[in-house]
Order: sequence, then C-alpha cells, then structure tokens
Amino acid sequence: MTSNVNTTYIVTISCPNRPGIVAGISHGLAELGANITEAQQFDETESRQFFMRIVFEIPQDATDRSVLENEFSRLAREFSMSWSLTTTNVRPKVLILVSRFDHCLVDLLYRWRIGELAIDPVGIISNHPREIYRHLDFDGIPFHHLPITPVTKPEQEARIIQIMDESGAELVVLARYMQILSNELSCRLSGRCINIHHSFLPGFKGARPYHQAFARGVKLIGATAHYVTSDLDEGPIIEQDVERISHADTPDDLVRKGRDIERRVLARAVRYHIERRAIMNGHKTIVFTS
Amino acid sequence: MTSNVNTTYIVTISCPNRPGIVAGISHGLAELGANITEAQQFDETESRQFFMRIVFEIPQDATDRSVLENEFSRLAREFSMSWSLTTTNVRPKVLILVSRFDHCLVDLLYRWRIGELAIDPVGIISNHPREIYRHLDFDGIPFHHLPITPVTKPEQEARIIQIMDESGAELVVLARYMQILSNELSCRLSGRCINIHHSFLPGFKGARPYHQAFARGVKLIGATAHYVTSDLDEGPIIEQDVERISHADTPDDLVRKGRDIERRVLARAVRYHIERRAIMNGHKTIVFTS
Amino acid sequence: MTSNVNTTYIVTISCPNRPGIVAGISHGLAELGANITEAQQFDETESRQFFMRIVFEIPQDATDRSVLENEFSRLAREFSMSWSLTTTNVRPKVLILVSRFDHCLVDLLYRWRIGELAIDPVGIISNHPREIYRHLDFDGIPFHHLPITPVTKPEQEARIIQIMDESGAELVVLARYMQILSNELSCRLSGRCINIHHSFLPGFKGARPYHQAFARGVKLIGATAHYVTSDLDEGPIIEQDVERISHADTPDDLVRKGRDIERRVLARAVRYHIERRAIMNGHKTIVFTS
Amino acid sequence: MTSNVNTTYIVTISCPNRPGIVAGISHGLAELGANITEAQQFDETESRQFFMRIVFEIPQDATDRSVLENEFSRLAREFSMSWSLTTTNVRPKVLILVSRFDHCLVDLLYRWRIGELAIDPVGIISNHPREIYRHLDFDGIPFHHLPITPVTKPEQEARIIQIMDESGAELVVLARYMQILSNELSCRLSGRCINIHHSFLPGFKGARPYHQAFARGVKLIGATAHYVTSDLDEGPIIEQDVERISHADTPDDLVRKGRDIERRVLARAVRYHIERRAIMNGHKTIVFTS
Repeated sequence: MTSNVNTTYIVTISCPNRPGIVAGISHGLAELGANITEAQQFDETESRQFFMRIVFEIPQDATDRSVLENEFSRLAREFSMSWSLTTTNVRPKVLILVSRFDHCLVDLLYRWRIGELAIDPVGIISNHPREIYRHLDFDGIPFHHLPITPVTKPEQEARIIQIMDESGAELVVLARYMQILSNELSCRLSGRCINIHHSFLPGFKGARPYHQAFARGVKLIGATAHYVTSDLDEGPIIEQDVERISHADTPDDLVRKGRDIERRVLARAVRYHIERRAIMNGHKTIVFTS
Repeated sequence: MTSNVNTTYIVTISCPNRPGIVAGISHGLAELGANITEAQQFDETESRQFFMRIVFEIPQDATDRSVLENEFSRLAREFSMSWSLTTTNVRPKVLILVSRFDHCLVDLLYRWRIGELAIDPVGIISNHPREIYRHLDFDGIPFHHLPITPVTKPEQEARIIQIMDESGAELVVLARYMQILSNELSCRLSGRCINIHHSFLPGFKGARPYHQAFARGVKLIGATAHYVTSDLDEGPIIEQDVERISHADTPDDLVRKGRDIERRVLARAVRYHIERRAIMNGHKTIVFTS
Repeated sequence: MTSNVNTTYIVTISCPNRPGIVAGISHGLAELGANITEAQQFDETESRQFFMRIVFEIPQDATDRSVLENEFSRLAREFSMSWSLTTTNVRPKVLILVSRFDHCLVDLLYRWRIGELAIDPVGIISNHPREIYRHLDFDGIPFHHLPITPVTKPEQEARIIQIMDESGAELVVLARYMQILSNELSCRLSGRCINIHHSFLPGFKGARPYHQAFARGVKLIGATAHYVTSDLDEGPIIEQDVERISHADTPDDLVRKGRDIERRVLARAVRYHIERRAIMNGHKTIVFTS
Repeated sequence: MTSNVNTTYIVTISCPNRPGIVAGISHGLAELGANITEAQQFDETESRQFFMRIVFEIPQDATDRSVLENEFSRLAREFSMSWSLTTTNVRPKVLILVSRFDHCLVDLLYRWRIGELAIDPVGIISNHPREIYRHLDFDGIPFHHLPITPVTKPEQEARIIQIMDESGAELVVLARYMQILSNELSCRLSGRCINIHHSFLPGFKGARPYHQAFARGVKLIGATAHYVTSDLDEGPIIEQDVERISHADTPDDLVRKGRDIERRVLARAVRYHIERRAIMNGHKTIVFTS
C-alpha cells in the first residue's frame, strides 16, 4: 500500500538550447509519476543557453531519490545538461558572517524564527565578541568569535572554511560582514556565498557608499545583494532596491534608510537562493521570482 | 527546399491540473519541429486549474497553422483543455474608446507609432467631435463621433458593436471613456475589453475617486486596469500602480499625478493582453509578466 | 559666563490663516536669541487654517523653557493659535501594545536599541503571556500580561489607562494589537495613539484584509498607519506603503510581504509623531517629512 | 478703490545662515501687505548656508513689483543674500532641443497643451528635419533645423545661443538631445539648462547606458535629470527614478522601460525648475517638493 504523502523536489537545469528539452524532461518526470507544480524557463538568446526551474511532487513511497538522480543523469547526458536537485524536506544549512552592524543578522534570525525563511542556521561567525550581541538570543546556534588582523587573516579564513566544512553549510551569508575576503576564499565560496553591498551598484563602490551618495546629491539610494566571486563588488547581482532621499537627509539619515533597504534586499536574495530561484549565469543571474 | 524563416506563435491553455500535461504538450510541439522559447505555467491550488503560456518558433514552410490547430484540438480532448493560438505575424486589431480626457489615447497612439505596442488600431470612437482632438494626428485611423444621451444610448452602443464587427476588432480599450456601458454591452465585451479605472481599486469606486482620496487624506493614489465584465469596477484586475502624495497636494495635483499613473497602467495592461500574458481566471487574472 | 551648549526645541502651531503669522513668530523667536534650523508650513486653503513646525536652537543658559512658554502664550493670544512645545532633550515615553504577532514590536525595539528611534519605552502590554516572547530581550522595559475576554474587557482597558497614567506615557503604539478598543478608550487615546492597519486603507477594512486582497486579485498590497480615533479604521492616516504581488502569491505570501510593509510603515509613523512631523487636522494629517 | 485681485510671487533666497533671517524677511513682506501661502527653508549644516522658497500673494493694485524689488535689495544687503523673484503671471520662456528620439518632446508638449506645465515654449531645435516629427503638431512653436557635424558644431552652437537670445528663453531643456555640448556652451547655460540622462547616475555614464545595465545584470534601471554644467553627466541632480527589470528583459525592453522613466523624470524636473522648487547648491540641488 502506497502512502499519500508527497515529497516536493526542486530541480534547476541549464544546457545549450535546442528543441525537445522541455518535452524530454517533462516526459521523464511524468514516467516517474511526478506532478509538476511550478515551472519557469528562460532562453538566453545571446549564449543560446537554456535555464529551467521545476518544482514537482512525487508520492513519498513510489520513487526514491536515487531513481530521480538516475533519470536526471540520463537526461544530462542526452542534453549536455547541468542540474541540481533538492528537496524541500531538508532545510539548507547556512552560515552567517557578521561584523559590528547587526541589523541584517537580526532580520534573518527573526525571519528564520517565525518560519518565514526555511533555513537551518548552523553557525554565526563574527570578528566581534558575543558580548556586543548580548541582546540577541541565538537560540542554540553556535557562535564563533574569530578576531581578525592583517597578520591573522589567513588563519582566520582557514578557520571559517573549517567551520563551513564541519557544519556542512552549503550557503554563507555575509550579513554586513565588512571584511574583504581574500581572493582565495572568494573563489572557494563562488556561487554559494551571498553578500549585501550597502549601495546601489554599480553606482558607489568602495567604502562609505552612503556618504558618497550624499556628496553627489543623488535622489535615490539603494542596496545590492550579489553572489561573491573573485571580483570584489562585481559578483552577479541577485536583488536590488532603492528608497527616495532629499537634500534634507543627512548622511545619518541615508545610513538609517540604507539599513531598511539592506535587510529586505538581503532577505529576498537569501530566499531566492534557498528556493533555487536564483541561478548564476556568468556575470549575471537568472532569478525566477514568483 | 525549406526556408529558414521562423513563425512565432503564442499559445495559452487552461485545464484541470493533472500529471502529464506539460509532457503531453511539449512532446506534441517537439514532434512538429517547434522550438519553445518561453514558457510559463501556474497551478491554482484552490481550483486545481492549470494555466500555461508558451511561445514557440516553427520553420515557416515546415508546418502550417492548420496542423498546429489539429494538434491543439487533439491535446484539448486529451486534457479537457481550453486553448488560444495566435501568431506574432498578425497584429491584433484594436478599437479605442475615449471621452474628453485624451492622455491615455495620446499615450497609446504614441507607443503604437514608434513600434512599442504591436497593435493595429482600427478605429477611435468618441462621444466628442473630432475637433477637440485637433492637435492629434490619427494617421488614417477611422474616427467615429458617436454622441450619447440617455435616450440614444442603446443605438449608440449598437453602433459601437457594428463598428467592432465591421473592423474585426478583437480588443476594445476604454481609454478614459467615462461612459458607463450597459449591462448588455459589458457582457458582450467580457474578456475582450480593458478599462482603466482612475483609482486604486477597491479603494475608491464611483465618481471622482481622486477627490475622494483627497477627502480621506490617503498618502498614496493609484490606478487600476481591469477587464470589463458585467460587474462595474469589479472586473478582473490586470495591473495597478500608485504614486505617493502628501497633504500639500491639491485635488488638481492628484488628478495630474493620476494621469501619469493611468497612462502607464493602461499601456502595460494592453501590452499584457496582446502578448497573451494576461489570462482571465474567474474574478481574477493570471498575468505572466516577463 | 554663558555656556555654548544649545537646547533644541520643536514647536508646532495651528491657527486661522492671516498675514503676519510667520513674521510674528519668527520675530518673537529672534528676540529670544533662537536660531531656526528647520521650518515647514502649510496653508490649508479649504479651511483657511495655517500649520507650522519650527525647529530652533537656543543657548542653554540664555533662556529657560518658561520664557519660551510665555512667548508662545502671548503669540497664541495674538493669533488664536494652538501650539505644542517639546525639546529633543527629553525622549517621549511610549507604551507598546502587542498581540500574538510580534514583528512590529521586534522592529520598534531594535530601532530603539540602536538609537534610531528616540523614544523611551515605558511598558509593553500584551494579552499573551511573557513566555511567547521568550526570544526577546525587553531590556528592563516593564511587561504587563493583560489577558482579555469579552467579560473582562472593561477592567483590562481600565488597567491599560492606569499603566499609561503611572508610566507617564504620552504615546500608545498598537503594534498589531489585534484587539478592538472600546469607544471610550479610543476617544481617550485620540491623537496620542498610533495603529498599524494591516492593509491599504480604504481598500480592505475588517478582518483578514490580505485574504480579501487575494480573493479580489489585486496586484498591490499595502499597510496603513493612522491615529486612533473613535472611528475604527477611519482615523487620520499618517503613512502608507505598498508592495507588488502577483497571481502566484498565496495568502501566506501576502501575509509575509505584509509584515515587511507593516513594520516599516509603523516605524515611519512613530518617527513622524515623535519628531512632531505629523499633525492631526480633522480627518486628515499634515505630515512634514524631511 | 483697490482691486481684490492678487498677484502671486515666488522668491527664492540663499545666504549665510544666522539668526533673524526668517524674521527679517517675513516682517518685510508683512509690511508690504503680502500673505505668505507657502514657505520652505533648508539650513545646510556643512556650508552654514541658508536656502528659502516663499510663495506670497499681494493685492495687485497695492504694491507693484519695483517696491518688492527694493525691499529684497534692502534685505539682500542686510543678510548678504542672493535672491530671485518671479511672478506666476508670466510663464517662463522655454527652448527645447531634441534629436531623433522624441518621447520626451512629445510628453512635454502634451503637458504644456493641457495646461499641466505652465511654460511658454518659444522654440524647438533639432539636428533632424521637421519631417521626422511630421506626426506632431507644434502648434505654432517655431521649429529650427540645425544640422550638426564636427566641423559645423561651433556655428551650430552659436545659432542656438542666438535663438536663445532672440526668443528670450530663460530655460533650455535637452529632451534627449544626444549631442555633447561644447564646454563653452555648457558653461554659458549653467544653471538654466536641464538635461535628461538616460540612466541612473552615477551608475552608467557614457554611451548606451541601458546596454551597459543589461551587460551588468542590474535589477533596476533609472533615469536622471540634472542641471547642465561644464562637467558632462556630473551636473547637480534634480530628479531620478527607477523601474524594476529582470533577466528576461532584453536591451530593447530596457530602452522601452527607460523611455517611460525618462519622460516622467524630465517632466518633474522641468516643473520643479519653473516653480522655483529646484535651487542649485554647488554640485547638488535643493528641491523643495510639495
């Protein structure tokens, strides 16, 4: 007797575009008894690359994961396809890095606590001691104080990698971490690390972007969440947003408004990633929003 | 020898959801040599109804339209499916109704003239004479002055229907037409007529909504484009937008800001319709935006 | 010897409009050695009522508050003027009422903790026990669990008034309090109580507005912060904001997006109030934003 | 016998900040029988500079303009004040420069025609012949076809200056003019020429900014209206706005959305200028929006 309980899977694929891909995949899934509940696709005409995100349900007892993996391996050979399969039963393990400013950390933890953000936070790393977050309840999430100086940076980063490996984190979130990662660490994290840049890129790179915006007299400020790659501040953009400012806003007002933009932009980007809505495509992203 | 020229088709379908729909359709299209370039789907969980929009290319000489129609008729029987097939080669014929305020008319005609809006305007109907639009170049689009009084309303509406039929218009746009359609005409136009309501629905129905907004002291005003149905101001909403206002804005300022919102909301709604992105679903719409 | 330290005052005034008001007030302030750093005025043409907000600095030792009060009393007689004088040296005492959903409470406390919101929280009242907020550090703010039933409502509200009086709270914030205040309490709090209505008014009044929005198929949802008056959901609107939604958003998605809108709209409204930027004007507000 | 008709004036002033300015000005205006209907001020704390915009009414027969000018000259001496006085009775003369893309021109002319934009267009200059605007009714506004080549640029610009002088234009609007002004002309027009930059500055300077935005994969595009100064693309920003884009938007889609942003941003900037709401302040602007 088969259970009625369904398991929900998300598969993302990319491959060179040619006729028959959707037919091939959807036929394969139908054969396995899967019911497609969401599907989004995008054909990039420049590179002739095809991207797709499919959410499907499958009776829990009918088909196990290895059968699905076999099918996608077969399709991958047929269509020269990269693919990634996840199930919503398992929450992605996430490591959060933070510095002095904790508004993004507080926001992410709150969204996690009330069940809005389906992540499993496996660690919080800061270059500041636990004491400065004394008002925050980490609720059992391991906290790691990793102070950093120019001299100790290599070993501090080695420790970050060790914590990643030990905790099994698949995503690192730089929640206003404020430390420039070494080129080596950036490369290693490429595609599985999201940063919030406290400015509207490509407008104001570098330090103190809100003060730059004030000096330039712009009428809108923004924030940018992007994947970390070896190019500092140049990684593929996942999400951006802005707020209106006026001549009467001081740099402090800009920083205040910036906090609001930063936390909502980062939270959206993390959600897009864990729901497999964001897919890296060279210097850009595909983001299949709902 | 087969030409390399492709014809682009858009098909929209809806049917009760069950496994195998995507596989069936994509298989059928692949068999006919079609290359799917865009596909968006939505499963409404409440009604268990499935909606899909597919854009596909097919070599011009390989398959003619009747073959496609046969295939979709076959699929329609298999999946109890409603479907609609159009080609981007033929611009949809559109009839525009307008009253005294011509900002939406001017905007639509401009977008059409520069090639932004792929419509074929087959007529402009107004209850005001050509003279009040003397600054506008209608560029050969037939203009019909149909004055209206409570007494002549039935025959005026009969004349509108006659012009629709004669011109072959498949879409009627009420570009601030300001006349309440009879229940009979509303029903007849249901699903193929778009109205712009100069307010953010469901907030302010009825007359002079911006003045109502002023009296209530709201901080945002908006506009709503919706399909016309027999329910006045209650038809399925296609698009909405808002702008911020303050205590210092007079009713005239609200009307001015409202014009900007109205014209962009209506233009988007018309584009969604002619690109088959908007699909009516009972009292609501599915809108597959890019 | 006089200190160089300045005290900053904010005065808001309203009176029937006539020539000479600005001259009279600015002359009076100049005589007392005040330096006006911000001034905003609004003449409501309908009611011929004049509103003004002035921020001025005055050397701390030169003039004490009673001298200023005498001057404004004199001006009040001359211009039939209502006025209110506060200093930024003293943070306004605020009482926060909350129910099960704590996102607005968490947000307000965070903004207070980092110094963004210059309030003095003197109490938190909930109809739920302290336990459900166990993850929150109230940092010494007295917490009052006041359960409520239809039978105990009068005494529960009496207790709220008692806490207000004892704590000296000048502002009550209903941070998703979810209880309908009695007409008596509403009247008593009129003008010094801010509510967040989890919907874009006047669109969806009453219960479960996001579900109403879903059922109606709107494309934008919003939230409204307003002063509490005896008219439920009809008090003067201070601030509103919206976010875009689509057919693919479930009621849960709307509630999620709604939380983000609610907390930023409420935080802005509280800031406008405590900085004396929001002034009630009958059924509306004047809001002198920066 | 004195008429009841009022004349409305707008005065903008700037001067070093010190106590007594508002008192001095408002006293002076009260003495002349003026009724202040709007007043906005801003103290820039960095430069200690004071800015103010005052709208006042004065009975038409009571005081003529020269009396007002004498009074402001007197105040200017007292407070080391720059000032500018205009009356809403006289519409500012405006010269519009345009190239191939006419969406901003069409938009400005429409707003002028329906009375929304209180300008007096005294000329349209294009480097393209009248023929390409054949669908547009210029309604008697003189049109000047001034073709331009690298060789003829100096004389073409001399002709522009001549037309400005002869027409008495006080404002030049570059409505997507697409020609880089010489340094000499830029300096000459400094502060009385508004340009629309078809991008969100400072993000994408230079040519084809929407294509740059596409290549970078940003999620928002924008437009910027700024005063022309000798710094190309670096003049004081008056207004900016953005729209959301996605991976599915082609460069053509960005250009389409860009047109909508450009025309509303430019129209707002022109309105701010002619209502004397925008005041240049070094590399920035003060914009007293309503």
